[in-house]
Amino acid sequence: MTGIDDLPIRDELRGKSPYGAPQLDVPVRLNTNENPHPLPEALVARIAERVAEAARELNRYPDRDAVELRGELARYLTRTAGHEVTAENVWAANGSNEVLQQLLQAFGGPGRTAIGFEPSYSMHALIARGTGTGWISGPRNDDFTIDVEAAKAVIAERRPHVVFVCSPNNPTGTAVDAETVLALYDAAQAARPAMVIVDEAYGEFSHRPSLLPLIDGRPGLVVSRTMSKAFGAAGLRLGYLAAHPAVVDAVQLVRLPYHLSAVTQATALAALEHTDTLLGYVRQLKDERDRLVAELRAMGCEVTDSDANFVQFGNFDGPGGAHAVWQALLERGVLVRDNGVPGRLRVTAGTPAENDAFLDAVRAVLKENNR
Amino acid sequence: MTGIDDLPIRDELRGKSPYGAPQLDVPVRLNTNENPHPLPEALVARIAERVAEAARELNRYPDRDAVELRGELARYLTRTAGHEVTAENVWAANGSNEVLQQLLQAFGGPGRTAIGFEPSYSMHALIARGTGTGWISGPRNDDFTIDVEAAKAVIAERRPHVVFVCSPNNPTGTAVDAETVLALYDAAQAARPAMVIVDEAYGEFSHRPSLLPLIDGRPGLVVSRTMSKAFGAAGLRLGYLAAHPAVVDAVQLVRLPYHLSAVTQATALAALEHTDTLLGYVRQLKDERDRLVAELRAMGCEVTDSDANFVQFGNFDGPGGAHAVWQALLERGVLVRDNGVPGRLRVTAGTPAENDAFLDAVRAVLKENNR
Repeated sequence: MTGIDDLPIRDELRGKSPYGAPQLDVPVRLNTNENPHPLPEALVARIAERVAEAARELNRYPDRDAVELRGELARYLTRTAGHEVTAENVWAANGSNEVLQQLLQAFGGPGRTAIGFEPSYSMHALIARGTGTGWISGPRNDDFTIDVEAAKAVIAERRPHVVFVCSPNNPTGTAVDAETVLALYDAAQAARPAMVIVDEAYGEFSHRPSLLPLIDGRPGLVVSRTMSKAFGAAGLRLGYLAAHPAVVDAVQLVRLPYHLSAVTQATALAALEHTDTLLGYVRQLKDERDRLVAELRAMGCEVTDSDANFVQFGNFDGPGGAHAVWQALLERGVLVRDNGVPGRLRVTAGTPAENDAFLDAVRAVLKENNR
Repeated sequence: MTGIDDLPIRDELRGKSPYGAPQLDVPVRLNTNENPHPLPEALVARIAERVAEAARELNRYPDRDAVELRGELARYLTRTAGHEVTAENVWAANGSNEVLQQLLQAFGGPGRTAIGFEPSYSMHALIARGTGTGWISGPRNDDFTIDVEAAKAVIAERRPHVVFVCSPNNPTGTAVDAETVLALYDAAQAARPAMVIVDEAYGEFSHRPSLLPLIDGRPGLVVSRTMSKAFGAAGLRLGYLAAHPAVVDAVQLVRLPYHLSAVTQATALAALEHTDTLLGYVRQLKDERDRLVAELRAMGCEVTDSDANFVQFGNFDGPGGAHAVWQALLERGVLVRDNGVPGRLRVTAGTPAENDAFLDAVRAVLKENNR
């Protein structure tokens, strides 16, 4: 039987498995940081309307440069992220993963390197591999914040072409302050002309303001965003970035032409019309997130400060470690994420009922383990 | 003013322009091989219905493996392309450009090479560049068919990892026979384990049967397709491939997770429900294409045999060459494509009225040039 290994795939792919969380059918799924609020019915109707309109011209290629959508995303950022940007500052693609892939195609690639401070969003390293970019794993403190002095030292030594800063950081949850980003930016530029990519996929859930204003006067700084989380639209695959217009010009050299379908553009535009309702859900989720943090701490769990719609908790150093707790929760119908951080698990803030079910399950598992 | 050249972009991108046909607002646009038939209103309604259904779960990630869609694409191929395939043989992505990019990420990339026989679809070379794959330009005969002996010789000498065969070939129009593909496949495998990618973006318009049956017993052979042309859905960005299941496993190692949005999957599924109507449009377009060929030849133009929804015509060797004719047609409100093939232009088969306008414009330009 012919298998992958009989094909001439690249050596570095041999023996690898596709990335992705297990998709298990359990009652309470809190493992992929999805927003638990379905889109409001008025927005569903508006999506159908705008998509029907787009479908009447579906025989034509979509707007290659997604100008209307980029304008609306710019308006949204200007309104919510504390810095005025226009369509010229914004670029959109199929999920922030594709945005990051385009950035690495333009600024990374063979013979170049990127650094991330791990544990962090594991796709950064995977997209680096997929684009032939060398990967450098940078350090963190024990509390999962970035160790600025150690980070500056490794940047000075390894001289990466691209620096990833994930804020709020996934899977640990804490946002990064502007001072830290500026220190890393300056260290990177001192080593060589470099790009710093601030991944704000969970930006709307943070206690801190967006890092977007830092792009001002810094053409080497990019902020990436997504509609998957705050807009409750993981199924839409709409990621975007904001940066100096020259960065937008640069990604246009590597983007596949007409990468963003007319139905994606239409759906995203409809969702942006309902921003206020969706940001209301974000406020509810932040409250639920804060409740998860408080109740887990009350149970005696170590909880990493969270600025996201998820919470990292532990520290499970018993037999089987975090994975045994993951399994025990799954047996109680609650699916959380084991990201491989020793002793820690990650839970997404769900609906109040889902969060109650999760908290009850943790209580039961802790009680059992202490018997 | 900061520009691209002030950013640390990759050296090979410096001075390049983004790929894409000029988007000019003229009455008759026959330059991007779009299908001139808008989707029927019943299909537009069905798209709105299926997208609304998907939008009710848009807060969740889409089916990462697009299983239902791949099954329906397999059914379509089984019915129309002369070979039985299942979902396991099929993979889908955002346009066949993304399918090809994933194939080159898995089977090409740094330190590897791909060959195409030029002139051909220029994105093959561009996607090679974007994935760090070396590019080899193979030869064609004067009539734009593949010179099999010369092709075999260059494959034996250069030993490419990936061989592109575009059938029907864009921009020249002629389909490739199975014998030629098999000769190239055998030559490629004799040189090293290699992948042969048959790009059938225009396959439904051909006088010849699909090359899909050639995948049988040949894990190194991939057929790529698109819904942009035959399904009249360029705005949808839905490309797919059929191959041995091991090839599908391989692209899953490099695909971005959740690359295909729920709205794209829903829209494509709706379109596949209306296959019969859409293939009826294809038959009309083939008749119009044949009429374009006949009328252009009657005017004394050289026309390359066409199996596609476009026609390559010339030979314009007067002052200014093909580009002067392109400009003269544009001044008459007809936009065709100058793909840089010396003396030749490419026209898309449009509606009967658009084709009449195009033929009248050519007649007028030829008359003027002969004065």
